[in-house]
Amino acid sequence: MARYTSIEHLRFLLFDVHGVQDLFSYDYFSHLDREQVALMIDSAKALADRDMYPFFREMDEQGVHYAGDGVVWSHPQLKTIIQNAAEQSWISGEFPFDLGGLQLPQMVYNAAHHIFQAANNGTQGYISLTTGAARLIHNYGTPEQAATYLPPMFDGRWQGTMALTEPQAGSSLTDITTTAKPTASGYYEIKGQKIFISAGEHMACENFVHLTLARIDGAPPGLRGVSLFIIPKHRPTAEGGLEYNDVFCAGDYQKLGQRAYATTHLVFGENDNCRGWLVGEPHKGLSYMFQLMNEARIGVGQTASSVAMAAYLASLQYARERSQGRKPGEKDPLQPPIPIIRHADVQRMLFTQKAIVEGALSLAMECNRLADLVHVTEGEAQKPHWLLLEILTPVVKTYSSEQGNRATSLAIQVLGGYGYTVDFPQQQYYRDLRIMAIYEGTTGIQSLDLLGRKMTMENGAALLQLAEHIGSTISQAAAHPALQPYANTLQIEMNRMGRTLRQLGEFARQGDTERYLADATIFMEMAGYVIIAWQWLKMAIVAQKALDAADFSTQSRSFYEGKVHTMQFFFRYELPHAAACSDILLAEGALTQVEGDEVLD
Amino acid sequence: MARYTSIEHLRFLLFDVHGVQDLFSYDYFSHLDREQVALMIDSAKALADRDMYPFFREMDEQGVHYAGDGVVWSHPQLKTIIQNAAEQSWISGEFPFDLGGLQLPQMVYNAAHHIFQAANNGTQGYISLTTGAARLIHNYGTPEQAATYLPPMFDGRWQGTMALTEPQAGSSLTDITTTAKPTASGYYEIKGQKIFISAGEHMACENFVHLTLARIDGAPPGLRGVSLFIIPKHRPTAEGGLEYNDVFCAGDYQKLGQRAYATTHLVFGENDNCRGWLVGEPHKGLSYMFQLMNEARIGVGQTASSVAMAAYLASLQYARERSQGRKPGEKDPLQPPIPIIRHADVQRMLFTQKAIVEGALSLAMECNRLADLVHVTEGEAQKPHWLLLEILTPVVKTYSSEQGNRATSLAIQVLGGYGYTVDFPQQQYYRDLRIMAIYEGTTGIQSLDLLGRKMTMENGAALLQLAEHIGSTISQAAAHPALQPYANTLQIEMNRMGRTLRQLGEFARQGDTERYLADATIFMEMAGYVIIAWQWLKMAIVAQKALDAADFSTQSRSFYEGKVHTMQFFFRYELPHAAACSDILLAEGALTQVEGDEVLD
Repeated sequence: MARYTSIEHLRFLLFDVHGVQDLFSYDYFSHLDREQVALMIDSAKALADRDMYPFFREMDEQGVHYAGDGVVWSHPQLKTIIQNAAEQSWISGEFPFDLGGLQLPQMVYNAAHHIFQAANNGTQGYISLTTGAARLIHNYGTPEQAATYLPPMFDGRWQGTMALTEPQAGSSLTDITTTAKPTASGYYEIKGQKIFISAGEHMACENFVHLTLARIDGAPPGLRGVSLFIIPKHRPTAEGGLEYNDVFCAGDYQKLGQRAYATTHLVFGENDNCRGWLVGEPHKGLSYMFQLMNEARIGVGQTASSVAMAAYLASLQYARERSQGRKPGEKDPLQPPIPIIRHADVQRMLFTQKAIVEGALSLAMECNRLADLVHVTEGEAQKPHWLLLEILTPVVKTYSSEQGNRATSLAIQVLGGYGYTVDFPQQQYYRDLRIMAIYEGTTGIQSLDLLGRKMTMENGAALLQLAEHIGSTISQAAAHPALQPYANTLQIEMNRMGRTLRQLGEFARQGDTERYLADATIFMEMAGYVIIAWQWLKMAIVAQKALDAADFSTQSRSFYEGKVHTMQFFFRYELPHAAACSDILLAEGALTQVEGDEVLD
Repeated sequence: MARYTSIEHLRFLLFDVHGVQDLFSYDYFSHLDREQVALMIDSAKALADRDMYPFFREMDEQGVHYAGDGVVWSHPQLKTIIQNAAEQSWISGEFPFDLGGLQLPQMVYNAAHHIFQAANNGTQGYISLTTGAARLIHNYGTPEQAATYLPPMFDGRWQGTMALTEPQAGSSLTDITTTAKPTASGYYEIKGQKIFISAGEHMACENFVHLTLARIDGAPPGLRGVSLFIIPKHRPTAEGGLEYNDVFCAGDYQKLGQRAYATTHLVFGENDNCRGWLVGEPHKGLSYMFQLMNEARIGVGQTASSVAMAAYLASLQYARERSQGRKPGEKDPLQPPIPIIRHADVQRMLFTQKAIVEGALSLAMECNRLADLVHVTEGEAQKPHWLLLEILTPVVKTYSSEQGNRATSLAIQVLGGYGYTVDFPQQQYYRDLRIMAIYEGTTGIQSLDLLGRKMTMENGAALLQLAEHIGSTISQAAAHPALQPYANTLQIEMNRMGRTLRQLGEFARQGDTERYLADATIFMEMAGYVIIAWQWLKMAIVAQKALDAADFSTQSRSFYEGKVHTMQFFFRYELPHAAACSDILLAEGALTQVEGDEVLD
């Protein structure tokens, strides 16, 4: 079987760079030890090897498709995948023991899900979406709601979804119009349509639990009038059975990639018989949903790096096996061709992929770690973790998906013409990954969030957290002679980002919010380079220590050399573009606020 | 019908920026006038509107596929397209009157083909490939060969192809092994296999004329032993009929995109009955083929910009029609949503596309113009045109395809989730364009050509030509106060490129060719930014003149304002990355010449 992820790199991130074992000192995780976690990761890998990766391409070729009458045909293997993942607790793993969970850190849950994402990204979402929906019910629902919905969701029999987007509203949740009419019986009568609902209908589950945003009659307009509801496709009856809840799948979307992942159009209450149950308090739906959304954003970012990881390893294998051409200096055509991995440009393409993929995955693991710390701490102890997570979430989502597109494109390019054919998986990775910059808030939305909200929140407290953490990494790196130049460079880039932000901030202070945010996406690009450089320096410190101590008990020498080398590569080939972003941001004039758009003709 | 190209922009490039009318003073083109050319472009547009664009998506969905027994199934519309294009002289147009051509400039031929590429890129290649193959026969073949092959090729009944790539050799033409054994009858017995042969078999033509590279028995090894042959699928008999020539299509490649364009695997002489006819002299095949190859490289670059143009216009239309969200300052949710084209980030995505697409198309037209000048001049008069064309060819191929990928990705992004669905054409443009960085020499190959050959050829004479032309544009621009800052910026970037090249050149002078060329692709990226900035300044000069004179007799005011605005956008948002490329190129150390590749694990 082809290598689709590096368990060595995953262990390195989990144990050596981000120290999952440090979490075990918290009560909630105190039952865990390192060996146990390593074994769970191995089990997840075995599951993915057996049930997921072998079906990756076939499930894409066959796709999912609307078969009429509310039915979405899905590959029979999907049921096996969901059920076996559920059985290994990869739906319920993070939940408390008393709910049937394993009290796992998000770091461990998402280490396993990274493997699933790399093995078969089109099916992993079915599993993690149920986890996310279950957590919303657990956190904000009633004990009765939890008792009703969580067990079948944890078993993988009921699919959880999040239903936000509406045809007329797209990214603009302000404009949600699905209605919820209170009744004397405690439930609400729901009416409305939702589009782009992932996993909203398929053949692998018996029931669907849609966590849905809607407006209670008379709610205030805009975001402050949106409430969260549980809307099952089949509602539980008093007798313990199920009855149809007037949730109809009216069609699906056929897509460029992730063709095994159903994207559906749902109609609620077409026959005035759709009931929804309020989760938490009225009009607070958006803040609840944002918990799931934030998790989902980390998940999407991580999926992007996982898919790009699989593409990278496929192109690495090809580059080793394929011989072609000779070194530039070699004029003798009778000399045998060399493996293409010996060509500098092929190495450039491979290192670029490795730098993006492993850097992005490290940032995802950083976010998972922070989410765990937020989970097990409270009040003032919690705040720094929460602030840092807030500022990193849009970045991990965006960097991984935008640069992941570039990485998978390079994975095609390494193969030349073969990479463009369906005989190799690269083209599928390229298609699959392209959605990640759109799911759960586009790059534009994430960038507005980063520059417009996260950078300024609580008077810059989140930014301060970031600066402190990066500063700490810089100090540690500066202690190693081999890393000192890179520590200096990162400091320079941090200063540049700070300076850029201050200058941009002038617009905000003058009340010109539009101009302040006009190039938010360029700011995001710059922040991405700097933050991934930080992750690489973190990884390089661990690797350099092992190299200095000649301690190769956990990983080989070349493994650590590879980390230091790729860090150097990232600093040399990627990071210089941060300065270009700064130049763009600080240039005068507003070129993207044109009123008369005929100039675009 | 959706707008898939801008005839206004095409006319602007043809007449106002690159002055096709200046060619009419040469004898070969003296029969032409401006109105005639404009009418021909209009006819091509009508043809594309009727026969090509309406079938663009259907032909992709149905694809072409190997049906067994040497047959490649193709859409019935393909025959209509080829025949009607042939009838309008879009195969033979550039050839002399006495051969049945119209003595058209390549500028006009390719203006029409730009329309075809934008309308239906998967079918345009069938037509232009026949033109290219015919030109090889015309230039290097015997009059008898021309008389035999050209008429049915010009009629669109016989398909021309170029057959270079072999399974074991890929991009490395040095390693070609197809053999040609001389016979007393004048023909050669051919034996070998070729892969990735575009248009190598389909149902729209009666015969196939493969311009094929092979080695005559006893030829020297390497590139100096490669000869060019005409190998028809059915060979003409003495009686004026055709007989099967033992050229068998053994299969096809199913691809990510360009699914209507057949990519075939051909077997020559499986039954020892395949005859080839030498074109020109023995062992000179590669130099002949490079004529076609160079044309094809411009064609591929132009196709990339044409596809990206169609994607741009589709996303522009959507951005105007779709309302969603509000301006950052607008807090009132009862205000109606605004068209997304009013959002700064959407404008950024649209202007980025426009800047790439129109800039790249302008460079393609510059190359077409130079090819025309090379055609109608000789000796010392010809040389400057030839030198400039040599240096620009790898750039137009690479910039257009690499940045075109980015542009089509942005075209998806403008639509959000809808852009990822098959309900919109954006995803097809994204898939189709991806091959352009691979066809006719990958980006890596083009970059080696640019830095290793073109920059240094004839002691830098080509580079000098480029510098003189850019210098002349800078001088002209500096005369307009509105353009002067941009003239200065371009001069700074030219100086930076020169300095970078000189410093890199140290490696070459020290004999370290490998290090000199290691980052050729980064150099290519830098050269692309600078050269497209030059094209934008050229366009802006014409536009600024019209604006200054308030002369809107040919184009509207907003059209010219759009050119100046997009030039400013390119200089602000794209050009700053050239400095980052220079930093990367001049950094110390060699990170992509690793011997032990375990560090990539």
